Amino acid sequence: MNPIAIAIHGGAGTILRSLMTEEKEAMYRNALREAVELGHQILTDGGSALTAVEAAVRNLEDCILFNAGRGAVFTHEGKHELDAAIMCGASGLAGAVAGVRQVRNPVTLAKAVMQHSEHVLLVGSGAEIFGQSQNIAFEPEEYFYDSARYDQWLAALAADRVVLDHSLVPENTSDKKFGTVGAVALDQSGNVAAATSTGGMTNKKFNRIGDSPVIGAGTYANNATCAVSCTGHGEYFMRAVVAYDVSCLIEYKGLSLAEACQYVVLEKLKKQGGEGGLIALNQHGEVVLSFNSEGMYRASKRNQEPTYIGIYS
Amino acid sequence: MNPIAIAIHGGAGTILRSLMTEEKEAMYRNALREAVELGHQILTDGGSALTAVEAAVRNLEDCILFNAGRGAVFTHEGKHELDAAIMCGASGLAGAVAGVRQVRNPVTLAKAVMQHSEHVLLVGSGAEIFGQSQNIAFEPEEYFYDSARYDQWLAALAADRVVLDHSLVPENTSDKKFGTVGAVALDQSGNVAAATSTGGMTNKKFNRIGDSPVIGAGTYANNATCAVSCTGHGEYFMRAVVAYDVSCLIEYKGLSLAEACQYVVLEKLKKQGGEGGLIALNQHGEVVLSFNSEGMYRASKRNQEPTYIGIYS
Repeated sequence: MNPIAIAIHGGAGTILRSLMTEEKEAMYRNALREAVELGHQILTDGGSALTAVEAAVRNLEDCILFNAGRGAVFTHEGKHELDAAIMCGASGLAGAVAGVRQVRNPVTLAKAVMQHSEHVLLVGSGAEIFGQSQNIAFEPEEYFYDSARYDQWLAALAADRVVLDHSLVPENTSDKKFGTVGAVALDQSGNVAAATSTGGMTNKKFNRIGDSPVIGAGTYANNATCAVSCTGHGEYFMRAVVAYDVSCLIEYKGLSLAEACQYVVLEKLKKQGGEGGLIALNQHGEVVLSFNSEGMYRASKRNQEPTYIGIYS
Repeated sequence: MNPIAIAIHGGAGTILRSLMTEEKEAMYRNALREAVELGHQILTDGGSALTAVEAAVRNLEDCILFNAGRGAVFTHEGKHELDAAIMCGASGLAGAVAGVRQVRNPVTLAKAVMQHSEHVLLVGSGAEIFGQSQNIAFEPEEYFYDSARYDQWLAALAADRVVLDHSLVPENTSDKKFGTVGAVALDQSGNVAAATSTGGMTNKKFNRIGDSPVIGAGTYANNATCAVSCTGHGEYFMRAVVAYDVSCLIEYKGLSLAEACQYVVLEKLKKQGGEGGLIALNQHGEVVLSFNSEGMYRASKRNQEPTYIGIYS
């Protein structure tokens, strides 16, 4: 049997054990396990990498614990603006959406952009209108309402701060998290895919877009090199074109997947001050989960090996 | 004296001599000359590459001949949605805006995002609100009104086609042009910069965003490698992460600037069906103007050499 593999992340940052209860940690671990094993089952059953990353990300989007889909943070206006991207390593096709509201699963809308439009990136109301034409599921505002996130937004609003995380603790404490979810997968046919989804930053203004929906920055997939999904301080990841950088280091410099990820995350990004991490895999079934922050919600499963789940470094 | 150089483009595509009058060609040539010599004068006077690319792109944005700023094409809704990006090769900082309306010089708004916000990419009304806070110039809708483009929009609307060009001739004829403007420059201090600006596609729907405002795709600058501004079928340029690809081929594979541009534009993009081109330069003052389409509006000036202006291949 050909190798199969899937890896997921639920955001990176300073995840302090001191602020994590045993109960909360178990919730995160269970959610990560459910998403990664759902995607893995699809691969085991002969499904495509594209289907697997979409399913895993949808599962994380539906989970209130992560800053994507249902669990998205509040913008400055008290709304939820969602970004997502997906890329197929076999065809090189990609789709992305940014600043969409009330879309239950932005990753599925991104996939529709890829498969049913001539475009790669649609934003805002235009992306929503396209989504309606594709029978994408929309939800009322209340669906995205979470009392903990609401309190977080009120606190950030009172301080007029942008909070880059999905934590209950404001940014100026040491518990800083970058809320994003993502998945990369390798299917039995040897195809890879990547997907990323996020609710962005708490109290964000000006319709800011981060790296998640930007092909090459937060999301990239190419059968010849790797599939990558990032999470971190988006501006740094955009300027460094992180996901494609990993691919180029493999293709042009001959680095291994692990070497490329280590160089980008632990050297380049760290030197520039770009906090965060990424998940990556390749056609050989190698999986790398790399981050320069104190923690990254992550999970992976290769072939029929046991599921790996991690939070802290 | 250290080398200085500037190159600009005003879009690529099938520019048919048969549809070009002598008078019209002279107008394009004069406009290109004015913009490139304006930027070159700034460099000669000791100005920064960043200032030079902004000034050259502003000049092209103010010109009705090119699909950016004033000359932007009409969207499906009969409006103008403008995208722009700028990147500084010395600092690695970048700013971009997408889908902004009534902004006279989107490149200047992009520069404000880079210099006066924590962000890289702002879109739509949020970007406009930020622009107001930065005293960016706005213009009434009529400023962007041009009877030729209006007729072009009506024709496209009647046929429900998206026209990727800024030509008077619909897409299904052989006169296909990709309307974008851009500039790259090298200043006396050895710093490079890149900027790109566009009005997108005639009759575009769904708030589609192309490669121009995407750092790594349509715009990229790094003192260590090159500065690049692209023009072409944006979706292909986004999936191929074109501007950063040129940089990576230089940094990781050791190609020369010319080799890297040739490989990306004439081999990779052409093979994928990605029509268009790019302008690029590096710290040594090497300038490359490369395209796989039948023409590209372009101009360059190195040191005190004569100004080069080209339209056809």
